Amino acid sequence: MKTIFQDKPVEYPEKRPDGRPLKSILDVLLERRATSHFKPDPVPEQHLNAILKFAAQAPSGYNLQPWRFIVVREKANRERLQKAAYNQEKVAEAPVVIIAFALKDDWKNHIDDIFLEGVRRGYGKPEMVPGLKKMASDFLEHGISQPVWVNRHTMIAVTTMMLVAEAYGLDTAPMEGFDPQALGREFGLPENAEVIALLAIGYGESPDKVYGGRLALTEFVHDEHYGHPWNHEPDNPIPAIGEEIERHILEPVPA
Amino acid sequence: MKTIFQDKPVEYPEKRPDGRPLKSILDVLLERRATSHFKPDPVPEQHLNAILKFAAQAPSGYNLQPWRFIVVREKANRERLQKAAYNQEKVAEAPVVIIAFALKDDWKNHIDDIFLEGVRRGYGKPEMVPGLKKMASDFLEHGISQPVWVNRHTMIAVTTMMLVAEAYGLDTAPMEGFDPQALGREFGLPENAEVIALLAIGYGESPDKVYGGRLALTEFVHDEHYGHPWNHEPDNPIPAIGEEIERHILEPVPA
Repeated sequence: MKTIFQDKPVEYPEKRPDGRPLKSILDVLLERRATSHFKPDPVPEQHLNAILKFAAQAPSGYNLQPWRFIVVREKANRERLQKAAYNQEKVAEAPVVIIAFALKDDWKNHIDDIFLEGVRRGYGKPEMVPGLKKMASDFLEHGISQPVWVNRHTMIAVTTMMLVAEAYGLDTAPMEGFDPQALGREFGLPENAEVIALLAIGYGESPDKVYGGRLALTEFVHDEHYGHPWNHEPDNPIPAIGEEIERHILEPVPA
Repeated sequence: MKTIFQDKPVEYPEKRPDGRPLKSILDVLLERRATSHFKPDPVPEQHLNAILKFAAQAPSGYNLQPWRFIVVREKANRERLQKAAYNQEKVAEAPVVIIAFALKDDWKNHIDDIFLEGVRRGYGKPEMVPGLKKMASDFLEHGISQPVWVNRHTMIAVTTMMLVAEAYGLDTAPMEGFDPQALGREFGLPENAEVIALLAIGYGESPDKVYGGRLALTEFVHDEHYGHPWNHEPDNPIPAIGEEIERHILEPVPA
């Protein structure tokens, strides 16, 4: 068994780099914007380490943790990354850009170590491991496509990373605009790599990008069954239909 | 234009249902476990609404928000869902289970409304919309597969929802063990639906599932280039190789 494991984070900054307290997760979600331009100010090493260690605490199917990251901080490398990301300026501006990727079928190289580590920590009994492994392998080989599975899981860790960075008072920009082949060549990714997202982290140049609005709950949440719009929001009654909706939509938004 | 939009949440509980303050995101990540069994206690309606509204604040490519949810609370429906989820007990036990899905190619039905809503709120100029739409459409039709794209984005909202629920002191269980066909039949999903995850929300029955450990940063984080393990963690020096690693791995873990 060669894989090295870590425990939950023990030492990590409990405040923002400027000493202010962490943002609450609700404030993070109210204030987070996809940052278009970054200042050159660096992200403190201890905060970056904490962001990575907390990202690792994300859940995954069978604890297989398929997410992999490349942390890009060197200027020359950020410029190479920018070229592989349709020349987006924020990629070269941000002091840290993380390439989130996964290796398809790489779970086969880690499943034994991960399951044995679980048993060692008291999760189940050794005699359960073969059955658990068969169940996981059947699902991963026949129940789902690898590109779907690695995207699904890697985004749990990427989202976690983004929200922790924001709670530390940093700004972020998640991106899916890149050329995966070019990026793979520049950063030495193996053939079975699936590049999933970029996440720039740093300090944004104001002003923030305008908030584009979100679909109402009635548009994307169904109540008990598909086709029954969610309508349990006491403080936000939904207009009936037709003209009333048109009027609601077209009324001016305060600047 | 028929789509209804919402703004950022304005009214939402700022505390847990029992009146205690929100958990910090770091405590959420340290304490969150995939819950195996739930108590029957209900999730307060106002907290559930807030969880959904904050999930909607997740970012997505071109703000297209492909995530869709079915909120299942009725006992009979949770039992039907349990049958479509390999009979996992937690599905029928939890007071709320959310089916996260997406409709492939459904972005075509919303892109105009979403882009016009953005313009109405001051994001870009009306004359930019056709070019932006062409860029988005080219990517979504030719640059990526729909199953990958909808999984990638829906998990940003699911992860957000899970972390907000945990910050409210609730327990959660994300699941990918379900039969998508059976689930689609039971809940009336259309043909182009991609079922992505289930998220049970409620109050867990103790004890928590044992923490199975996580891969060390050196295992999944690369420094500047693939194949150069991240080794910037001052408080966690990495053993050299070989026997020393074996010893590190095999030392007993405190109970």
